Amino acid sequence: MRALVIGGDGYCGWATALYLSERGYEVGIVDSLVRRHWDLQLGVDTLTPIAPIQHRVARWKELTGRSMDLYIGDITDYPFLQETMKRFAPDAIVHFGEQRSAPFSMIDREHAVLTQVNNIVGTLNLLYAIRELCPECHLVKLGTMGEYGTPNIDIEEGYITVQHNGREDRLPYPKQPGSYYHLSKVHDSHNIHFACKIWGVRATDLNQGVVYGVLTDQTALDDILVNRLDYDGVFGTALNRFCIQAAIGYPLTVYGTGGQKRSFLDIRDTVRCIEIAIANPAEKGEFRVFNQFTEQFNIMELAQMVKHVGAGIGLRVEIQHLENPRVEKEEHYYNAKNTQLRSLGLVPHCLSDSLLDSLVHFAIRYKDRVDKTQILPQVTWR
Amino acid sequence: MRALVIGGDGYCGWATALYLSERGYEVGIVDSLVRRHWDLQLGVDTLTPIAPIQHRVARWKELTGRSMDLYIGDITDYPFLQETMKRFAPDAIVHFGEQRSAPFSMIDREHAVLTQVNNIVGTLNLLYAIRELCPECHLVKLGTMGEYGTPNIDIEEGYITVQHNGREDRLPYPKQPGSYYHLSKVHDSHNIHFACKIWGVRATDLNQGVVYGVLTDQTALDDILVNRLDYDGVFGTALNRFCIQAAIGYPLTVYGTGGQKRSFLDIRDTVRCIEIAIANPAEKGEFRVFNQFTEQFNIMELAQMVKHVGAGIGLRVEIQHLENPRVEKEEHYYNAKNTQLRSLGLVPHCLSDSLLDSLVHFAIRYKDRVDKTQILPQVTWR
Repeated sequence: MRALVIGGDGYCGWATALYLSERGYEVGIVDSLVRRHWDLQLGVDTLTPIAPIQHRVARWKELTGRSMDLYIGDITDYPFLQETMKRFAPDAIVHFGEQRSAPFSMIDREHAVLTQVNNIVGTLNLLYAIRELCPECHLVKLGTMGEYGTPNIDIEEGYITVQHNGREDRLPYPKQPGSYYHLSKVHDSHNIHFACKIWGVRATDLNQGVVYGVLTDQTALDDILVNRLDYDGVFGTALNRFCIQAAIGYPLTVYGTGGQKRSFLDIRDTVRCIEIAIANPAEKGEFRVFNQFTEQFNIMELAQMVKHVGAGIGLRVEIQHLENPRVEKEEHYYNAKNTQLRSLGLVPHCLSDSLLDSLVHFAIRYKDRVDKTQILPQVTWR
Repeated sequence: MRALVIGGDGYCGWATALYLSERGYEVGIVDSLVRRHWDLQLGVDTLTPIAPIQHRVARWKELTGRSMDLYIGDITDYPFLQETMKRFAPDAIVHFGEQRSAPFSMIDREHAVLTQVNNIVGTLNLLYAIRELCPECHLVKLGTMGEYGTPNIDIEEGYITVQHNGREDRLPYPKQPGSYYHLSKVHDSHNIHFACKIWGVRATDLNQGVVYGVLTDQTALDDILVNRLDYDGVFGTALNRFCIQAAIGYPLTVYGTGGQKRSFLDIRDTVRCIEIAIANPAEKGEFRVFNQFTEQFNIMELAQMVKHVGAGIGLRVEIQHLENPRVEKEEHYYNAKNTQLRSLGLVPHCLSDSLLDSLVHFAIRYKDRVDKTQILPQVTWR
């Protein structure tokens, strides 16, 4: 089975490409490498020194004998996408190839427009390419749990059955995203749903929670295969950033009260969820939505866990509440469903002291690379 | 009070600009004139010969003494938009400035991408310009009833209160749009809602039904002020197109069974609804949604009415069922609410034989301009 991983040079994409390759899939990687360019523009960098994608792919081949096809280009360039689809002929497309940072999208008008145009046009192009060149191909699209926002009712998986004035319908779950980035994912979901309806595209929208961790069995094999790990105010996400802050003796930066509750998963579960989605494709014309996370925490709970683990290894970890740069509820109801991936075989890696301990130790190994001036949030929603 | 009408050279925009000017508003018109360019590209034309916008504005001044400011440019060009906003300093912005045809958006990938990028970027630019230059300004944005699709429950105005697992919330009404154009309006709605939340923008989203009719008290004053009237397969909409078909002895083209039920309003009510929205601005931070229509019909009902009126003036009108070029339900539940504009003072012009009679006679006057090769739908959804 042939799986094309778009955004295969990124944090989730690289781990997924290696995992699928290891599991016997024929893997193609598509990446424009623009994320590395944005890092340069913003003056930020991954904690870990990541090798060029060409070296990564070559090293994987040396170590395992498994080769992966590499297509450097941008899916917003339709002729490039057509040529890639013709040459690789995928059975499944895993689409990580989007601008994925909420703060990046909120920097200014230009970044908001860049994010929405890049993500929407890339996904529209993919839908047209599937229709034109491989209509049976299964699109596995990365969405985000942030599409739902924080409604005062349970969050279902993509759809909700509504009773109203004596009638009933199963409708798309209402979306209340919290940034221009999250909005772009909502727009994608609506566009894909429509393409499934009119063209019979088979698609799975994976509304993923916040991913933490860095090592998978594959990326841990060799330094050249190491994954990126972001800690800066633009691309760094809560739990990974806390572990790095603990490692370097920087206070854990909690935005507001820290009562914001979100969904989380280990990167080892991300790669497994992708495999489950590919191995169990959506029906023709089906727009299937899975909520891809394993546990829910609020931000203060995570900070306390990291502080506790840090104390266990002799680190003095402080927690600092910053004025919240985002516009979001800090105390709210939150209860999301995630039964579908479990019922298809996902066995979660739950968050544990030992995972946090190893992540902090991993961060300590690279702590001399940290640029402390990049940690605080500099982008505000207002 | 100063009202900037974006898309003021278009069918609804031109009628609105004149109406507001007549009612004593200081009116500015913004238009890129790209719609006239698209007509040229597609080889289609309005039934009525419309004067250049500069002549239209000059004639209005001659006849009424009222001047309107004219800004020729594209709101996707941010420096142009900034300059326009600074010079005109609007109290209200009426935003008609979008690609507004479903078939146009479905021509091919390029037109889908053009529609979504044009509409989304224009609206994002407006939101940033309001935030930057006139944060108190009221944005009156044209959406469409097509954002809702045809759910099996009543369609509310923008929001729905959902009970679920013993809890309750008022949520954005779920959207199931039926073309890449309709999707672009859904994307706009989500983006505007977010801007209201984070920046305190005041906005009214007018989910308008299908507009019919051509004359308003103002556009009827003079031939130079005449409004456009589209009958072609791309820009022509159901009822207007039927009247023109009756006038020239062309069968009324009903797509599929004609059981598709939709919301409609007279263009004289469009202009009044805009005035009502402007005169009763949304609160700071409020994303207000009105359903802007007066009556609901299915397509066969409209065809039968036109056939009946045609017979009364000696025209032999046939009804022809075409294979439906769209993907849509032809038999379905449809019941939409429209109480808010009524409660603010809208007194509808209901569809009548006399309106249809005058519309058919109006079409007869221009019937030599009809290009019959442009009537049939040439764009299919599949």
